[in-house]
Amino acid sequence: MDTAQIQPIESIGYNVYLNDSLNELVNFVEQGNYSKFFILTDEFTTVHCLPLIEEKLTGKTYDLIEISAGEECKTIDFCIGVWKMLIDFGADRRSLLINVGGGVVTDLGGFAASTFKRGIDFVNVPTTVLSQVDASVGGKTGIDMDSIKNIIGTFTQPKAVFIEQAFLKTLPSREILSGLAEMLKHGLIADAAYWEALKNSDLSIPSTELIAQSVVIKNRIVISDPTEKSHRKALNFGHTVGHAVETWSLDHDEKEHLTHGEAIAIGMICEAWLSVKKNTGLTESELNDTVKVLTRLYPKYEIKDSTFPALIELMKKDKKNEGNTINCTLLKAIGTYSINAICTEDELSESLKYYAAL
Amino acid sequence: MDTAQIQPIESIGYNVYLNDSLNELVNFVEQGNYSKFFILTDEFTTVHCLPLIEEKLTGKTYDLIEISAGEECKTIDFCIGVWKMLIDFGADRRSLLINVGGGVVTDLGGFAASTFKRGIDFVNVPTTVLSQVDASVGGKTGIDMDSIKNIIGTFTQPKAVFIEQAFLKTLPSREILSGLAEMLKHGLIADAAYWEALKNSDLSIPSTELIAQSVVIKNRIVISDPTEKSHRKALNFGHTVGHAVETWSLDHDEKEHLTHGEAIAIGMICEAWLSVKKNTGLTESELNDTVKVLTRLYPKYEIKDSTFPALIELMKKDKKNEGNTINCTLLKAIGTYSINAICTEDELSESLKYYAAL
Repeated sequence: MDTAQIQPIESIGYNVYLNDSLNELVNFVEQGNYSKFFILTDEFTTVHCLPLIEEKLTGKTYDLIEISAGEECKTIDFCIGVWKMLIDFGADRRSLLINVGGGVVTDLGGFAASTFKRGIDFVNVPTTVLSQVDASVGGKTGIDMDSIKNIIGTFTQPKAVFIEQAFLKTLPSREILSGLAEMLKHGLIADAAYWEALKNSDLSIPSTELIAQSVVIKNRIVISDPTEKSHRKALNFGHTVGHAVETWSLDHDEKEHLTHGEAIAIGMICEAWLSVKKNTGLTESELNDTVKVLTRLYPKYEIKDSTFPALIELMKKDKKNEGNTINCTLLKAIGTYSINAICTEDELSESLKYYAAL
Repeated sequence: MDTAQIQPIESIGYNVYLNDSLNELVNFVEQGNYSKFFILTDEFTTVHCLPLIEEKLTGKTYDLIEISAGEECKTIDFCIGVWKMLIDFGADRRSLLINVGGGVVTDLGGFAASTFKRGIDFVNVPTTVLSQVDASVGGKTGIDMDSIKNIIGTFTQPKAVFIEQAFLKTLPSREILSGLAEMLKHGLIADAAYWEALKNSDLSIPSTELIAQSVVIKNRIVISDPTEKSHRKALNFGHTVGHAVETWSLDHDEKEHLTHGEAIAIGMICEAWLSVKKNTGLTESELNDTVKVLTRLYPKYEIKDSTFPALIELMKKDKKNEGNTINCTLLKAIGTYSINAICTEDELSESLKYYAAL
């Protein structure tokens, strides 16, 4: 498939551009009736991505706001920093914020924009695989607090999203693999053929076509349920266990912590196991196929029995829960999901044990 | 008019109850499918208002979150405090936050709720005249930052508002006068008969009927323009100059600063003068009538010539402006307004001089 044929994907009131995206960004900026432009980057995207954008934006003046890179920067303190810069630079209600970066930049920038003067326009230029396939649709903005991911945020749609494959070439392979986990999840929950295609593709740099398929799948789910009342919970597959493992790693691994995708891969293994255990329909052989692909791509992470209770506590704090139960999205088969599965603490412990014994 | 005849006022997706309101609150709480309740108060409403609510809520358990009182507490730090309490108390997406207090509590509580887990339900129980007539409709939530009022916030509607006159009896008269300024504004911008009625009423504790008329006027304007693109700017009458004076007083008056209403009364005088000056239609005699009523009710505040430049700077930072202009809402006559009047710095200085010379 020629990428020139990839049409913009229509999400909730805005387009996701995958073809000639930086020129589309320039068009957008030129056609919008904006008083000022702001670009939000992190220390890496300033170096690796901003020059490509600047090349296109010739003659346009803007103010740059840069934050430090990494999930540990997705905090209210950095958000306050962005708000104060917007104030100091004289942003008004007709200003546009252009978020250039991974999920931390697009989530935090989206939250800052959606709450500045009760909401100014923003667009996202996701620069990682993860943010291209995950943060590009859905309208979720947010920051972390007290080690709980995205606990503070809004549902606010960007005015457009621009996906440029060139940015992926600057990423370390571990970062690419992190995003790939969400692509694999899209296959597992919604499209067995896509899962097969991913298994058999060269994934060192995912093609724009594969990225587009992921965006289409996520977009279809999001449009059917913008505020996560039902269908959208499909996207939580792997995330109940995965978020807990990710948070634990962020808090405890001093040297190097798990990436989002590495944690979600662990979560998908545990929750695929729970699917079989709780007879949702997933077969043993589908479980084995899932485990085989994920363990081939992602390194084994050591989880000690003594850590299980702390992980369970984190799962209880997950914002997806209601009351005192722990809520999971499981698989009925590869390509179909089942939401609102209540899992007991024992079952979740057992699933961690299964992973640990692989 | 018997208050029993005051029907709930329908705002954007929710009702404002003015009759038997605390029982209506109990009905709401009982009928909603909520997992937990939280009540947000300030140090005064905990003492003066919470007992009346507790009396009705017999047998219901809830967690109390209390913040300090005063506009200087409408900050991100207090908001973070509320978020962290919600986390610690285990609030989930089906939790309800009941904001009991003046505008600081309802604005800050509304912002905290609208961003916690990307939005949980909240209801407002405004306990001051100002919050009953101003914050009860409009869906504006927010906090101040860097001395700029409501610079961070969202447009989010509460699920209901409960107005109880009994709370007003606990207020100092200066606090009642503060709210009255907004009621007078409603008359000036939208209803000459209501302005006349207010002029001739005993305003020591405004009647529920007068409060209801104000809510009806504000509600009509808000419904016609929920996100402040046009008509809603009518409500900004007196607020361009007023907000600047209020902010200046908050930052500089060490002993006792102006109330919101006192500042808005000054703003209304200046902006009524600007209306005549800029020939919007307001007559000299209407200006004199306005000034006479406002100076009778509100004490004179000294504004030195040397302060004018700082006030103008604050007006420039007002979030209502676009680009480098200063935007005012003026009066065409008592009872009608004119939005988007661009005022020069000189004109605004002159209007302050007019006030100072009264």
